[in-house]
Amino acid sequence: MKSSLKTFEEYFSQSVEVRMQHYEKAGRLQHVMLSHQFSIKLMEELFDIADHIKGMTRKPNGIEFLKSLLSHKKAMLYFTQPSTRTFLSFLTACQMVGMDTGEVRDPSLSSEYKGESQEDGVRVFSSYFDLIIMRDPKPGFCEYMAYLLDNTGRSVPIMNGGSGKDQHPTQALLDLYTIHRSFQHKGGISKKRYAFVGDLLRGRAVRSSVMLLSQYKDVEMDFVAPSSFQIAEDLEDILRSQNIKIRKTDDLGSVLSDVDCVYMTRLQDEYDLSGESNLIDYSQFSLTTDNVNQMKSDAIILHPLPRRHEISTEVDADPRAMYWRQLRNGVYIRAALLLYVFNVAHRLKDY
Amino acid sequence: MKSSLKTFEEYFSQSVEVRMQHYEKAGRLQHVMLSHQFSIKLMEELFDIADHIKGMTRKPNGIEFLKSLLSHKKAMLYFTQPSTRTFLSFLTACQMVGMDTGEVRDPSLSSEYKGESQEDGVRVFSSYFDLIIMRDPKPGFCEYMAYLLDNTGRSVPIMNGGSGKDQHPTQALLDLYTIHRSFQHKGGISKKRYAFVGDLLRGRAVRSSVMLLSQYKDVEMDFVAPSSFQIAEDLEDILRSQNIKIRKTDDLGSVLSDVDCVYMTRLQDEYDLSGESNLIDYSQFSLTTDNVNQMKSDAIILHPLPRRHEISTEVDADPRAMYWRQLRNGVYIRAALLLYVFNVAHRLKDY
Amino acid sequence: MKSSLKTFEEYFSQSVEVRMQHYEKAGRLQHVMLSHQFSIKLMEELFDIADHIKGMTRKPNGIEFLKSLLSHKKAMLYFTQPSTRTFLSFLTACQMVGMDTGEVRDPSLSSEYKGESQEDGVRVFSSYFDLIIMRDPKPGFCEYMAYLLDNTGRSVPIMNGGSGKDQHPTQALLDLYTIHRSFQHKGGISKKRYAFVGDLLRGRAVRSSVMLLSQYKDVEMDFVAPSSFQIAEDLEDILRSQNIKIRKTDDLGSVLSDVDCVYMTRLQDEYDLSGESNLIDYSQFSLTTDNVNQMKSDAIILHPLPRRHEISTEVDADPRAMYWRQLRNGVYIRAALLLYVFNVAHRLKDY
Repeated sequence: MKSSLKTFEEYFSQSVEVRMQHYEKAGRLQHVMLSHQFSIKLMEELFDIADHIKGMTRKPNGIEFLKSLLSHKKAMLYFTQPSTRTFLSFLTACQMVGMDTGEVRDPSLSSEYKGESQEDGVRVFSSYFDLIIMRDPKPGFCEYMAYLLDNTGRSVPIMNGGSGKDQHPTQALLDLYTIHRSFQHKGGISKKRYAFVGDLLRGRAVRSSVMLLSQYKDVEMDFVAPSSFQIAEDLEDILRSQNIKIRKTDDLGSVLSDVDCVYMTRLQDEYDLSGESNLIDYSQFSLTTDNVNQMKSDAIILHPLPRRHEISTEVDADPRAMYWRQLRNGVYIRAALLLYVFNVAHRLKDY
Repeated sequence: MKSSLKTFEEYFSQSVEVRMQHYEKAGRLQHVMLSHQFSIKLMEELFDIADHIKGMTRKPNGIEFLKSLLSHKKAMLYFTQPSTRTFLSFLTACQMVGMDTGEVRDPSLSSEYKGESQEDGVRVFSSYFDLIIMRDPKPGFCEYMAYLLDNTGRSVPIMNGGSGKDQHPTQALLDLYTIHRSFQHKGGISKKRYAFVGDLLRGRAVRSSVMLLSQYKDVEMDFVAPSSFQIAEDLEDILRSQNIKIRKTDDLGSVLSDVDCVYMTRLQDEYDLSGESNLIDYSQFSLTTDNVNQMKSDAIILHPLPRRHEISTEVDADPRAMYWRQLRNGVYIRAALLLYVFNVAHRLKDY
Repeated sequence: MKSSLKTFEEYFSQSVEVRMQHYEKAGRLQHVMLSHQFSIKLMEELFDIADHIKGMTRKPNGIEFLKSLLSHKKAMLYFTQPSTRTFLSFLTACQMVGMDTGEVRDPSLSSEYKGESQEDGVRVFSSYFDLIIMRDPKPGFCEYMAYLLDNTGRSVPIMNGGSGKDQHPTQALLDLYTIHRSFQHKGGISKKRYAFVGDLLRGRAVRSSVMLLSQYKDVEMDFVAPSSFQIAEDLEDILRSQNIKIRKTDDLGSVLSDVDCVYMTRLQDEYDLSGESNLIDYSQFSLTTDNVNQMKSDAIILHPLPRRHEISTEVDADPRAMYWRQLRNGVYIRAALLLYVFNVAHRLKDY
């Protein structure tokens, strides 16, 4: 490792824009760290790759071909923050493109008890694997590791698998991919009205997806939440500075019949220490067959899952319910990202 | 999910026969739930597939061919009830036919702490995988999940990997396969006398295997157990109604020289809260080289494993000891079941 | 299992030389148990295989070819003693040569609670897998298991993955491989001066590597340690009886400029109950850029990793720092061992 490296504090005193540049190499994405990295152009390239993948998985020989594309690469799934769902989605995406995988899921199994620094630990993984998919509870850990690895002379790409309260860029990407697919014959993502419902203050997914959506032309956004869980001021400021038309309300019924997309979220009470959220009548921020019937016939319902009571299971059978499809889209878009990062997506045309 | 689904209680108010019909599709096995599902005809078809697989694993190119058969399919091993042995047997069977696998083994790693229902959790797996092999401690969980998944419009086959005190259908199947192989040049499974020894009340394996055996012509059964661990009354009633010749005794020596097969079991004291089983002299229900010498020269000894003291390790070298072979047969018959469920067994002839 | 087997005590009353013979079959290595098993001739054969593998991993079709060599074999990674690093190294090596793997990492997940003996447990694995890689905290466990399995009529090779305070033969092998590669254009391993620094009493790696090195001609060894952590008397006696020129000191500075290789180790305080090691000023047995500058320009620095403070991270950028390369060499040499044990290394020439 080179001397005179930046400390963690020094590294994060740099702006997002400066840090983002570190994560590119020869004008291409090298590390997947922040949803800010996804321009409309890049997203559309990834959506196209994901569409191809999705089509190919319908036939055994398409599946076999996909598995040949990265069978010479190995991925480490470093998930020291528990997550069955995201872990399995990445695992399945790796398998889909033929990558071998190794995993670290329980920090107590690691050799850290022998006093090794976490930096050395990650460097070990970069010696064994060609890619590290990382979910760690420490804020900023993924980004700083990418920075350190880049300075070892033996870097491998790192993908942020949703760390701490930070970023969850692949979740945002799969949300947008699902919107893209739902609206592709209905004029696309632009010029639509989107409602975000629930805990908008602490849910990572909402923040990242809102930022990606805000790149599109003439989108409008409704934020439906109890006042204590409304979107953060800084996010509101950013949206207003972009001239996005936004509305804030705590009355779901007042917007349901007007919007094209309802993005539901659960209450993040695993972060909730004060118990305040228990005082809120969450049923006002829930979907049942009754209020879903008020929605436009071609609107869509998204949810990052897992859900609790905010969407009744009866809604699942409604054709507007897209959240199970959204879950599967996560595998296709993550597989697309793998092909993109290793620069083999062009080989899809050989099929 | 469709509305107006049956509740758990409503579902199990249906008879086994009615439920079994749900697990078929186009006249073929879709979900593997209950040993009741295995007719002699189906078992013989599976035995034949397993024989083919076993033969092919002797040569590298046979192994490669097998691995090509389901390399386009993925299995989720959902083992929230601990079981190293059954887990590894299924894992190895999946690998044998080329399936990629994912696993959930520690419920605390799952996202259930975020308040998700187990139904939603299983539906997530059905989105990522083509098959779910399930071992869960909750009685009836596998069957009810199969029912719910069938009503989502996106069902995948579920195999019961031995749940709770319920059914362990693949264990019964491998027992019968081992008997089939042992007796195939000695007149087959019919017209033999079988002794079941040990804890016959609580061991799942015995109950299921007895039911499968009872389909064969002119089998006789000896149940050798302390009176408090004799077979359940309902099982005895069923057997008597089928005119099976049965005997109950607590004297192993009295039957050992007469039977063709001795099926040993261990005391299930992990279910034992009262400590009653500690009062029983279990050595009376054990095999040593001494009493094995009383057995017919072409009789066989089975055990579902793991064993404790009920079979002396010295017996392992006896040619009648089939329990290690039985263990390996479990992999072949499970691999056979995978080929059968995905309807590719006919391709074995291409080899 | 045959009767009249040796008990654990009887087995280990035999000398290393006698036990080693059990681990061969037809003049070839069958079980990898002890570093004593590696002669210079065998090591050079393995180094040559590892060199080939390393070269082939640089190209996708080389990687594909390697993965075809053992794709018909399955390995069980039995790591009931926690070790992320060694586990992943073996896992990656298995994947490199195409082996399917299964793992047992948490003893509490095993069926041992049902009262099964560990011998039976291992025999289960030998029924499912073609190789067992084993790391278990119990001294002698690996060797005794290899002995028992050999007497079942269905043995599979066992590799010791570094058990208890015992042997860690593949670590010694990768150390020697790294020295071999570093010095191959500088006259080879012979006639060099090696310093071992740190806790020389309890570190397994040092002991095994010293023994392997001592086979080479005219090597000299400096042991640099606090007096209470100097090499064991028996090891010193062995080296003196072989006429190896050795020196013992607690002054690192006095040897640093004269040696060709510095092998650093960490303080093994996970074995330290008395707390004695806390009294030692460990900084005297550490490398910084300052004292590394005193070293010969073509000397090398090794470390078995994980490190703590005994090598400053600034040293990583020095061209003499070989420990990260050493880590990667571990994968190549373990993959070489797999090809050797299954006797397919000759097929490398087909590429």
